[in-house]
Amino acid sequence: MSREVRVLPLRGIPELERGDDLGALIVAAADATGGFEPRDVLVVAQKAVSKVEGQVVHLSDFEPSARARELAGDDDARRLEVVLQESREIVRTRPPLVIAETKHGFVCASAGVDASNAKGPDTVVLLPSDPDASARRLRERVRELADVDIGVIVSDSFGRAWRRGTTDVALGVAGIAPLLDLKGHVDSVGYELHATEIAIADEIAGAAELVLGKTEGIPAAIVRGVDIEGEGSGQDLLMPRERDLFR
Amino acid sequence: MSREVRVLPLRGIPELERGDDLGALIVAAADATGGFEPRDVLVVAQKAVSKVEGQVVHLSDFEPSARARELAGDDDARRLEVVLQESREIVRTRPPLVIAETKHGFVCASAGVDASNAKGPDTVVLLPSDPDASARRLRERVRELADVDIGVIVSDSFGRAWRRGTTDVALGVAGIAPLLDLKGHVDSVGYELHATEIAIADEIAGAAELVLGKTEGIPAAIVRGVDIEGEGSGQDLLMPRERDLFR
Repeated sequence: MSREVRVLPLRGIPELERGDDLGALIVAAADATGGFEPRDVLVVAQKAVSKVEGQVVHLSDFEPSARARELAGDDDARRLEVVLQESREIVRTRPPLVIAETKHGFVCASAGVDASNAKGPDTVVLLPSDPDASARRLRERVRELADVDIGVIVSDSFGRAWRRGTTDVALGVAGIAPLLDLKGHVDSVGYELHATEIAIADEIAGAAELVLGKTEGIPAAIVRGVDIEGEGSGQDLLMPRERDLFR
Repeated sequence: MSREVRVLPLRGIPELERGDDLGALIVAAADATGGFEPRDVLVVAQKAVSKVEGQVVHLSDFEPSARARELAGDDDARRLEVVLQESREIVRTRPPLVIAETKHGFVCASAGVDASNAKGPDTVVLLPSDPDASARRLRERVRELADVDIGVIVSDSFGRAWRRGTTDVALGVAGIAPLLDLKGHVDSVGYELHATEIAIADEIAGAAELVLGKTEGIPAAIVRGVDIEGEGSGQDLLMPRERDLFR
């Protein structure tokens, strides 16, 4: 873990539409920066993935339930109806703020339903239905087009308990073990490290966010120089319910 | 936010002792990688700062209270006594795990009291008493020795609610606004972004962690290429109690 790490923004990717070949657009953008290298990690913003997968819905197609109207406060109750339909469980509410567990098991604001950067005020973007599968497809497409084996992270900006501001985290991964387990490693003064797991996939997603730029149309970045090894799932990053002290 | 970001490990910093001139050791290590550039962010692991500041205590100096023995389970009750003395409030417990709010307001495991990487099995390392002041002192020392104006983050590895693994976050900052406020910015399709604050100091700390290496004696890194602007405090990253849904 002691090499330099580089975070390279991928520029020139156009506004995305359902069905676009995101992998090909990414490979073209990467070529403009010198191309992928083996063991690079490609980080792609969830919203880009959701758009090409057609995970965009129109609020006018939703009839708010009583519960949605109650949670909405002064906000659009149709948006809250979408949030409820994307949720497995509501964790906390303070209208119109809803912290929910999504169908995938992520705990986040509005079950990941996001109005900003969508295709107009009446549409919202949902999370990908299976972010690991999205990451795997992008990994395969890059291998197919560029003949290189990389890791892929589909990221999103999540709020946190106790701390202000969002940081990007990994929703789906491919070709990377998202947790680095230091259990049993011995540190530089010979003391064994206990029970230390580092969520490197989340740290890589956060590093990529530093160049993504919410307002500038840069939906993807390459993170180069991290020792990725093994395989895993974005689900590995979810705290098992029986160990979760904050539900 | 669209330049390349580089994360450079600072190698060759020796095991640290109380009173060591950490700023001078860091400047020497940075010189070996080409030196600091203006607006670099120096990220220093909390433990390095705590050691030079003498924030190391011997468990044999602590007599466990009944409460400490109760929380300890099979663990060392003297360590739990230190945790209690460093805490303003206990947030959750499952012996021997304690999630506490520290005297500074950070919510984390064991109030930041850390046995690993300390100077033997009978000592523990506390958080710096004022991480912002620590960051300011390092910033001043770098300016004095290298005549360059940088940002500084004192970082630590914190667990999170709902997600496994730790990510590094900023405890203290100097020369950097830790939250990037996107309120009112207009994104690439003209939709105004609402209420989006990015905890860039935490993302920078996490990016640095990718090269720090818990077992390899690399206590600091340079993060280069992030648009840091303004001033702020690590306290800016703490969720005000009245807005905190998870206490």
